[in-house]
Amino acid sequence: MTYLLNSASDFSHEALLGFAAANSAYVTAVHGGVVRSTETPEGQPALVIGGGSGHYPAFAGWVGPGMGHGAPCGNIFSSPSASQVYSVARNAENGGGVIMGFGNYAGDVLHFGAAAEKLRAEGVDVRIIRVSDDIASNTRENHRDRRGIAGDLPVFKIAGAAIEAGADLDEAERIAWKANDATRSFGVAFDGCTLPGADEPLFHVPEGTMGVGLGIHGEPGIRDIPMGTASEVADLLFEGIIEEAPQERSGRVAVLLNGLGRVKYEELFVVYHRVAERLSEVGLTAVAPEVGEFVTSLDMAGLSLTLVFLDEELEQHWSAAVDTPAYRRGELRDLSAHADRAPRTEFYTPGAEQVPEASAESQAGAGSVQEIIELFAEVCATHEAELGRLDAVAGDGDHGQGMVLGTRGAVEAGNKALTRGAGARTLLVHAGTAWAEAAGGTSGALWGSALTAAGRALSDSASPDEAAGVEALLNAVEAVQRLGGAQPGDKTMVDAAAPFAQELQKQFQAGGGLAAALTSAAEAATEAAASTAQLKARLGRSRVLGEKSLGTPDPGATSFALLMTALAQRLESVAR
Amino acid sequence: MTYLLNSASDFSHEALLGFAAANSAYVTAVHGGVVRSTETPEGQPALVIGGGSGHYPAFAGWVGPGMGHGAPCGNIFSSPSASQVYSVARNAENGGGVIMGFGNYAGDVLHFGAAAEKLRAEGVDVRIIRVSDDIASNTRENHRDRRGIAGDLPVFKIAGAAIEAGADLDEAERIAWKANDATRSFGVAFDGCTLPGADEPLFHVPEGTMGVGLGIHGEPGIRDIPMGTASEVADLLFEGIIEEAPQERSGRVAVLLNGLGRVKYEELFVVYHRVAERLSEVGLTAVAPEVGEFVTSLDMAGLSLTLVFLDEELEQHWSAAVDTPAYRRGELRDLSAHADRAPRTEFYTPGAEQVPEASAESQAGAGSVQEIIELFAEVCATHEAELGRLDAVAGDGDHGQGMVLGTRGAVEAGNKALTRGAGARTLLVHAGTAWAEAAGGTSGALWGSALTAAGRALSDSASPDEAAGVEALLNAVEAVQRLGGAQPGDKTMVDAAAPFAQELQKQFQAGGGLAAALTSAAEAATEAAASTAQLKARLGRSRVLGEKSLGTPDPGATSFALLMTALAQRLESVAR
Repeated sequence: MTYLLNSASDFSHEALLGFAAANSAYVTAVHGGVVRSTETPEGQPALVIGGGSGHYPAFAGWVGPGMGHGAPCGNIFSSPSASQVYSVARNAENGGGVIMGFGNYAGDVLHFGAAAEKLRAEGVDVRIIRVSDDIASNTRENHRDRRGIAGDLPVFKIAGAAIEAGADLDEAERIAWKANDATRSFGVAFDGCTLPGADEPLFHVPEGTMGVGLGIHGEPGIRDIPMGTASEVADLLFEGIIEEAPQERSGRVAVLLNGLGRVKYEELFVVYHRVAERLSEVGLTAVAPEVGEFVTSLDMAGLSLTLVFLDEELEQHWSAAVDTPAYRRGELRDLSAHADRAPRTEFYTPGAEQVPEASAESQAGAGSVQEIIELFAEVCATHEAELGRLDAVAGDGDHGQGMVLGTRGAVEAGNKALTRGAGARTLLVHAGTAWAEAAGGTSGALWGSALTAAGRALSDSASPDEAAGVEALLNAVEAVQRLGGAQPGDKTMVDAAAPFAQELQKQFQAGGGLAAALTSAAEAATEAAASTAQLKARLGRSRVLGEKSLGTPDPGATSFALLMTALAQRLESVAR
Repeated sequence: MTYLLNSASDFSHEALLGFAAANSAYVTAVHGGVVRSTETPEGQPALVIGGGSGHYPAFAGWVGPGMGHGAPCGNIFSSPSASQVYSVARNAENGGGVIMGFGNYAGDVLHFGAAAEKLRAEGVDVRIIRVSDDIASNTRENHRDRRGIAGDLPVFKIAGAAIEAGADLDEAERIAWKANDATRSFGVAFDGCTLPGADEPLFHVPEGTMGVGLGIHGEPGIRDIPMGTASEVADLLFEGIIEEAPQERSGRVAVLLNGLGRVKYEELFVVYHRVAERLSEVGLTAVAPEVGEFVTSLDMAGLSLTLVFLDEELEQHWSAAVDTPAYRRGELRDLSAHADRAPRTEFYTPGAEQVPEASAESQAGAGSVQEIIELFAEVCATHEAELGRLDAVAGDGDHGQGMVLGTRGAVEAGNKALTRGAGARTLLVHAGTAWAEAAGGTSGALWGSALTAAGRALSDSASPDEAAGVEALLNAVEAVQRLGGAQPGDKTMVDAAAPFAQELQKQFQAGGGLAAALTSAAEAATEAAASTAQLKARLGRSRVLGEKSLGTPDPGATSFALLMTALAQRLESVAR
């Protein structure tokens, strides 16, 4: 139940503003989330941690010295958009590159990934850490493919401390993955949570039972078992995790007993009483254990236990001082000492991006690129209804609209970039960002990233030739494949895009020229799409867990083939 | 709903042990609660804060440098017993006296007061701070008679910081009261909380309404009004408090937006967004505002807003560093620096009290005192049934049993003290503690304190003479009156005890000797009791709010008169 709201649609945003107002000593709200309100050392890697809202204190509550540099905040239980992630990362980055940290969910993988593409196109080194601590969500062998739940806290705490202690980007990335590989969580749910404005919880656990292996977005658990006493629940969670204890271990563990929202603090302590006994029985010492609410799921009734099997390095960073709105640890010293933390006064706002200087050749090339974007926008507008019908088979039928909105946004941004003297590379990066922003959803994020990635094949100095054009298209396909986490055969757009890229490269290398190669490639895409179309009664599964958070389903291979065919025809007619 | 428990009766205790296990760097469990696990500077006043359980992080979560020295923890929503408070205070005290801080509820006033009596009898200076921030519970003119709710946090934070900064007992007491006088809270409830093991909440707020002026023990509020939006709720709370803003103010306020348990963090931030706007409108600056769960009420759905109108002194202490399990603020410095906080190894355990050396005269006197206690125990045993019947008119009929258990405990403790060579003073203090412990409830606390207070009139060196005996009886009556918070006419035991004391003093001063004076005094008590007996159809109201937490009701004047008459007769027959 949500008692306090003004409007369901403004809920997350108002909560973010209220959070920033209450914690102005730590954070400032920027487009898409929050960053530290104080200056950070130049050259220090920026730890950008985030995900959907509804998990407070995760993630915004952890921004401050010793932990996060910024937190993009999506809507309730939805990944922040690529544009939100980009804005926060852009604001947090201070010359040392970016570590993006988030729980391993398809939506987050996609949107953080798209933002990373864009930053990389701008020359920023970005590393990605997917937290995957939930032992209920995959096998021990596939630890890095598990979902992220309360393990977010220790992984980000340890990474943040390593950075505070002077780690560079490589080192921080290494330690963060090491922390994730040493972290195991297991949870149970007793009742579901209710989205703001909704009347009913997302699920109910049957009376007298509990859902084992809870998720933090209203996923009820992987199986129901009879309700236990507090000690029995403690035993269940402890035994699940201890089975995965590494052979070689220091005997020291970070321990986190995390309430999901509606379980009382006193209940958590009753459970911890038993956990402490079990730890002692197996000879494990709890280092700075934490019992409370850390990664919540609105008002969900449930809890999870997390252990991090520490070595000396991990323990040092787990125990280090940290000072954030909702997570603080360290020695006493008066706040007045904070005065030497200089307040930060300049922040990035979207739309105010600099346009780097470009050569006349690249500016001319940018004009050609813009023509192709406009052509593609026309193709999408012409085929809007058909794309909608394709999508309606498996999705919600808004793919046509999304493509029209996205290409229209890209065209506008491209024109604006042209008038500001942008080169070909910058034009594509701006157009890609605008596409994702205007179209929204998964499809928007993928296409936007494709344009951004294409831009990386070009430059703001040289004139883009046909070879660069092919390179750009290959980059775009590769970005879609990487970000979507899909392989050929997964029944997504990649089923058509991969043969498209293969054929394009082959024909161009054979010397047929760009337009001819594109036509052949579009034919290959159409053939591949047709051969898998019959199998597409249902949307193909992505390889990444938590698929439902992907948002708009991708209408896939058929629409890709259709659009490439139309585009090739238009380009050929223009070329003639 | 309580999801996690082993047994309802062990719930609070297991929670306390789990809490202590998870926070062993800060606290150690002792009889009755927790104290700091690290040494405190000798001569530093000890801040002992507490109340019932079910309010975590209040109060145990606030024990550590810069805040509490110890926290007695009662059962859910019940005051800790005098013996619990005493044990924690005894453990916390380190030569600088004790400040006891608690919310202004009758049960807490009584039991903390009784513990204070005992400590004072042992020569420890004790001051009492009753937090009374809830504007809904009494008028502005009677601020110090209001209930304590979330204002506990800023008052104890400020008092703890003052002590950390070097304040002595007088100074700490002054600042604590000043903080309380500057603190105002106002809350609303949306749904009640459920006690561990119970099936139903303590109350429901009618659908579509909210209860204004919530309490933190399941009190539903003073009136129901239609449910509002988040901003309307913020306005309601803000306007209620701002009406009481002092004329002269610095323009700076401590702000606390406190969730009672089931309201989500995100909801609190949506409300705070509006609060920040209102503060800005009236030109108030929030200093280190706090939004979260601080004084909870199990899983109650509700929230309260607290403002502390700061001057320079209060702001300094509000902003100062603090390091406790659940409330931390300060500058970064690694935990390894904690190593210089020496772990504490010696703690007080009840039953292991030292018996101070006593003169042979006082030891002999202790024997006489013990005879009187035994006589009184006989009187109680004889009249057990009658006392029960008296009590049954207004209470639950267990007064006779309570008096028998109490006096039996006192006799045992007295005998033990005698064998260990106790003087008269120490014997009475031990007997009083044992009485309260054995009898339990309000009546036990009052009678136990009466004995302890009586002890203060005697010494462990001089032989107790008749004048000292009179003094002891007067002290006892005065303690009952002070602790119970009742005046003659309030229809409690005091209606008989006050004339008893008056007549006793008068007759003894007239030279009639102790036994004769006691007989006259008992007659006066009987007469006074008879004249008020007709009015006693219902239990008299205590002057302190929250009467229902008083526990066992006092059967009052009649039983006091009966017992004193019987005692006087026995003493006369012994004397003859």
